[in-house]
Amino acid sequence: MQQNNEENKNTKLQPKTPAESFTIMTEMVLPNDTNVLNNLRGGKILHWMDIASAIAAGKHAETTVVTVSVDQVSFYNPIKLGDVVTIEAKVTRAFNTSIEVYLTVNAENIPSKTKYFCNDAYYTFVALDSNSRPRKVAVVSPQTAEEIAQYEKALKRRELRLIIAGRLQAKDAESVKSLFV
Amino acid sequence: MQQNNEENKNTKLQPKTPAESFTIMTEMVLPNDTNVLNNLRGGKILHWMDIASAIAAGKHAETTVVTVSVDQVSFYNPIKLGDVVTIEAKVTRAFNTSIEVYLTVNAENIPSKTKYFCNDAYYTFVALDSNSRPRKVAVVSPQTAEEIAQYEKALKRRELRLIIAGRLQAKDAESVKSLFV
Amino acid sequence: MQQNNEENKNTKLQPKTPAESFTIMTEMVLPNDTNVLNNLRGGKILHWMDIASAIAAGKHAETTVVTVSVDQVSFYNPIKLGDVVTIEAKVTRAFNTSIEVYLTVNAENIPSKTKYFCNDAYYTFVALDSNSRPRKVAVVSPQTAEEIAQYEKALKRRELRLIIAGRLQAKDAESVKSLFV
Amino acid sequence: MQQNNEENKNTKLQPKTPAESFTIMTEMVLPNDTNVLNNLRGGKILHWMDIASAIAAGKHAETTVVTVSVDQVSFYNPIKLGDVVTIEAKVTRAFNTSIEVYLTVNAENIPSKTKYFCNDAYYTFVALDSNSRPRKVAVVSPQTAEEIAQYEKALKRRELRLIIAGRLQAKDAESVKSLFV
Amino acid sequence: MQQNNEENKNTKLQPKTPAESFTIMTEMVLPNDTNVLNNLRGGKILHWMDIASAIAAGKHAETTVVTVSVDQVSFYNPIKLGDVVTIEAKVTRAFNTSIEVYLTVNAENIPSKTKYFCNDAYYTFVALDSNSRPRKVAVVSPQTAEEIAQYEKALKRRELRLIIAGRLQAKDAESVKSLFV
Amino acid sequence: MQQNNEENKNTKLQPKTPAESFTIMTEMVLPNDTNVLNNLRGGKILHWMDIASAIAAGKHAETTVVTVSVDQVSFYNPIKLGDVVTIEAKVTRAFNTSIEVYLTVNAENIPSKTKYFCNDAYYTFVALDSNSRPRKVAVVSPQTAEEIAQYEKALKRRELRLIIAGRLQAKDAESVKSLFV
Repeated sequence: MQQNNEENKNTKLQPKTPAESFTIMTEMVLPNDTNVLNNLRGGKILHWMDIASAIAAGKHAETTVVTVSVDQVSFYNPIKLGDVVTIEAKVTRAFNTSIEVYLTVNAENIPSKTKYFCNDAYYTFVALDSNSRPRKVAVVSPQTAEEIAQYEKALKRRELRLIIAGRLQAKDAESVKSLFV
Repeated sequence: MQQNNEENKNTKLQPKTPAESFTIMTEMVLPNDTNVLNNLRGGKILHWMDIASAIAAGKHAETTVVTVSVDQVSFYNPIKLGDVVTIEAKVTRAFNTSIEVYLTVNAENIPSKTKYFCNDAYYTFVALDSNSRPRKVAVVSPQTAEEIAQYEKALKRRELRLIIAGRLQAKDAESVKSLFV
Repeated sequence: MQQNNEENKNTKLQPKTPAESFTIMTEMVLPNDTNVLNNLRGGKILHWMDIASAIAAGKHAETTVVTVSVDQVSFYNPIKLGDVVTIEAKVTRAFNTSIEVYLTVNAENIPSKTKYFCNDAYYTFVALDSNSRPRKVAVVSPQTAEEIAQYEKALKRRELRLIIAGRLQAKDAESVKSLFV
Repeated sequence: MQQNNEENKNTKLQPKTPAESFTIMTEMVLPNDTNVLNNLRGGKILHWMDIASAIAAGKHAETTVVTVSVDQVSFYNPIKLGDVVTIEAKVTRAFNTSIEVYLTVNAENIPSKTKYFCNDAYYTFVALDSNSRPRKVAVVSPQTAEEIAQYEKALKRRELRLIIAGRLQAKDAESVKSLFV
Repeated sequence: MQQNNEENKNTKLQPKTPAESFTIMTEMVLPNDTNVLNNLRGGKILHWMDIASAIAAGKHAETTVVTVSVDQVSFYNPIKLGDVVTIEAKVTRAFNTSIEVYLTVNAENIPSKTKYFCNDAYYTFVALDSNSRPRKVAVVSPQTAEEIAQYEKALKRRELRLIIAGRLQAKDAESVKSLFV
Repeated sequence: MQQNNEENKNTKLQPKTPAESFTIMTEMVLPNDTNVLNNLRGGKILHWMDIASAIAAGKHAETTVVTVSVDQVSFYNPIKLGDVVTIEAKVTRAFNTSIEVYLTVNAENIPSKTKYFCNDAYYTFVALDSNSRPRKVAVVSPQTAEEIAQYEKALKRRELRLIIAGRLQAKDAESVKSLFV
């Protein structure tokens, strides 16, 4: 398998656990971040998630990273003005020079102690060397059951990403095809 | 078909063309929008796209709209500090209370007259009435060949969105399944 | 005439139409942009207009431009929080190294479909070379009746600008004087 | 004269000196305020001037004020990134419900102790009562020679403003006409 | 002792551990946050600390809190543009209606894996009820050795705060006096 | 005394009065600066104070300055949304390469003409040469009775700062000790 070969070339880079890239970002929803319903704008959430996941990917890569794609994001609950947003990000898997980060976004209304889930997503980054050229990164060594599950499904998400971006034919996507037949 | 039934209920709302919701947003990349490579941060692009598409969806719905999902976005070319970003958004199709908007993001380095494509994406909104409850919107009446193609594939994108969000079983997604088998 | 001579020196630069510099900027009025009446602050409008007109002047000049003056601006209608602002800018005429841009600012309350005029203005820029010294720009070739009228009155506006800035005696301003006698 | 009559109606409002509305605003030029030449953007200066002059007009009016016009502004010297900007604003004259404010903008490069003039301008405001309707304000009682000169020429500036805004025929503008003939 | 009496009145409120209020905020240093040396401005750090500690105090108080004082802060190491700032905040002790929060600010240059300490500080908040009147909060139940030490020295810090604010005579400050004699 | 020796080395630098560094900053409280009670956030005040005092310290030092510490700050009155904040800063004393600045923060509700005190504080800066190394600055020559009092107590504040930062033993702080015994 090509993937394994690519990953094998990274053997000189010490594997890293998802915990090593774990990043927590806490923000408070301010008036300029909201729409006319006083809910946090979806685009602002995506912006914060980009910074949080870039920090996580950077911790894994130990170099500059740039966002290459954002998987589909669904917003389940609106976040209200004044509520506290907690974004947690950690690396799930690295493919040669790219790094996938999984994020969860939760919010809390502090006076009422109401906590609620907002959304989760996968952001993908590419690591760059000092000449802005893609650079190999360490492989990920998942530890917990959840991390292992995330790691294993990463290949399927990657195929789906390539199909949607028009870079892979759906019929050649072995992992994803199994979902439908 | 359920979809057609829902759309039929909208008959009192005058159908609208995509051109009626067409929105152009022009921005200049400022220092705070960039990463350490002086490229516009992916999250900032997603934020601007959210505002542009909310305006387009609002023009179609003639009411308040909130972002419910953002389809996968791939960034093809980095946008440099000082370059001019042009975001174009128009509604592709409406499903009862939801509105899909298609956006393209292009950039230009003015001194060198270099224009380049950055990315495109679909944002989905739900229209709300004054009690923040979903409200029916006008159906879309596509005019150009491109608009008709966008309109027709909207159902497939919607199924894929529901599958990824875990709200539809892949095996039940008739439109998408055909891609793989 | 000195002006014509100066313009003649530009013959190697291909004349450009106003349409080539046409720029549309769409913004949504956010809380931080407003005063205590929830209306968009005049200074914020002028700021957005500066960016929109600098983009238009840059498209014409194909080089860096800096704002040298802003003609008198009157605000006819307040723009409300949440409304959508559309700024349209295009070059009207170039004088050797300077570029005049005409802007209109319109707003729309989307839920009520109310569109209203806010203001229009002329911004003037100077084009700079890589050593920050003024650089000749292409002449403008107006196409439509409105563009031709704008082009022809540009000389009068330029004289008025110089009088107000104290760089020209009112009695020497042939174009403007005709207005008063 | 209509103007005097209007002013006479204000006799219950205690006249105020320009010094009573005097406002100083100091700002430092940050990266996001600059163009690609690292100079403060003209539109940002106009934005700061709007806030400074609104504060001065508010001190005079003791009520909410909104910007109705900005006279022509010429930028004489670019202000560099990191430099300190000092904006001084004071009321020059009030006409019934409107207030004219004169501003000067100076800058300083602190390490080199270089101080330089950037621009000056007149902003005009209207005072509003709690129903957002124009409200009479106190007359201005100029004290210094400079304040008296500013006060006396205010009528001429007002006529010019009305001519440019198309609300007064040039041939009827007695004060301004004298400049040209 | 007055303090104990006040604390006793809170017995109906369940004591809380510092861990229950623990808050992590991660930020990236952007251009607008820096001074001319490209270091994060001290005032910006204090601003972020205010939000992080208000969130921690809010989690403890389960109501609205407002900042009443910030103890002396010394900045040990400058934080560079592009570095990642991690602010950790937790409640140390509550006095009737006020809450003391301890914060540490650390930074990391990700490409070089350099982590460094920036500063620590104590922020004090008052809890307010829905009429903006001070409201009792739960007592703090410190768990770890460090939390117990923080808790015990809180009284001394409180006296010092009152002395500096001129609300307590130095000669009456039993806890602090012992430091000097 | 070491202090005097250090100050004597500065004799080639012309002494400066506090008036030479006097800086006024005026700001208006905007929605994003406030908490859920519509009061200006304490951290935002500290941020503005940092910029105002850095300008004052820069005027004294005639070079780049960086914040090294902020003394304890107590907030006496909340500042409301829309109110005007006036920050006044001037240098009180310089110690070799460091500069102490005293600030007062006052606010005004313009429609009601209510002026109120918010807080005062001392910020300390270090002056840097072009290699970012500490550089001697001019001594301060206080003129008014208030300036002289500020100047004389500066030594006591400096000792207290060093004690709190753990750089000086309380028992060795001659100036401060006298307060307690």
